Amino acid sequence: MYVQLQDQLRQMINLSDEEFKHFSSGLTTQHLKRKELLLREGTICKNAYFIVSGCLRYYYIVDGEERTGQFFFENGWFADYRSFLTGEPSTQNIAALVKTDVLVLPKRHLDNMFVEIPKFEKFGRLVAENAYLGLRKRTEMLTNQTAEERYLELIKQRPKVIERIPQHYIASYLGIKPQSLSRIRKRLLDKG
Amino acid sequence: MYVQLQDQLRQMINLSDEEFKHFSSGLTTQHLKRKELLLREGTICKNAYFIVSGCLRYYYIVDGEERTGQFFFENGWFADYRSFLTGEPSTQNIAALVKTDVLVLPKRHLDNMFVEIPKFEKFGRLVAENAYLGLRKRTEMLTNQTAEERYLELIKQRPKVIERIPQHYIASYLGIKPQSLSRIRKRLLDKG
Repeated sequence: MYVQLQDQLRQMINLSDEEFKHFSSGLTTQHLKRKELLLREGTICKNAYFIVSGCLRYYYIVDGEERTGQFFFENGWFADYRSFLTGEPSTQNIAALVKTDVLVLPKRHLDNMFVEIPKFEKFGRLVAENAYLGLRKRTEMLTNQTAEERYLELIKQRPKVIERIPQHYIASYLGIKPQSLSRIRKRLLDKG
Repeated sequence: MYVQLQDQLRQMINLSDEEFKHFSSGLTTQHLKRKELLLREGTICKNAYFIVSGCLRYYYIVDGEERTGQFFFENGWFADYRSFLTGEPSTQNIAALVKTDVLVLPKRHLDNMFVEIPKFEKFGRLVAENAYLGLRKRTEMLTNQTAEERYLELIKQRPKVIERIPQHYIASYLGIKPQSLSRIRKRLLDKG
């Protein structure tokens, strides 16, 4: 699983084997069962997670109902980024959708890396820029698009979600009821 | 105005005078009249702006109406950050609210800095992290708070906006009509 991480890091920064070894020595592994919680609302997100295999979902609880924020797949990083950066309690729940393996990067270790191997600043910058762009896309999706437009965009931009995520979670992600998603899917099929 | 910039940078990274000189040699100054546009929707945001004095506002046009996204004051950086990062056309208009002086940082120059003075990676990371946190706060404000809660939060968190921005822009920022803001203000005054 460390090879997978090394490949992913290599796309962002140029680390020697020695430097990678130093970085990875601060990581641990964690195995999650299906539906197992990785982070609970109200606790502080002190780690970032690199997904080796499986899938994570984060969700909020609003008026007793789960609202899905996003899905994350293998070779991606995940954290409640605000809680991770500020040390404030998380407003998100993060759970495994299927059996999932992650590498755990403690914030303290990453902060040390910024000092000990300044190249990690570039990694930190790229991760932060991507987090910004992802949040901006998600926000505009929810404010400017109809549910059908959101669904079409999802098919185009993130086919993995369509292929691998159960319908009721996709509906929750789109901000609609499962029945509405069924109607949209039927309408699109009829259109051909 | 360069002294002001140097002070602001010093809070983030440790630059020698030589390094700062190299950085600032790539900047230019721009003077904006009241209401003058700095960036127009549909164009690419190729610069970041450091506000030396004055105030910028960015806004969207939705159904022919201006919706205010945010206000930025002296000693802050501003860009349509998505357009700046991706090179896609901006969806924002940026205008000066009052006579405003800015320093213009071309993206190309910043990209060079990342290579020539790697310390700038830390600057880039901190700017990106702050942009993420700002967007997240703004998003949750608009989705989870009533107009009155938003206004109270604004008073607490950003008194400068209350002091320096005309009421109709504040209303637009809160996502309400000026009359509704007047009612909220009256109610709060009555409560005392």
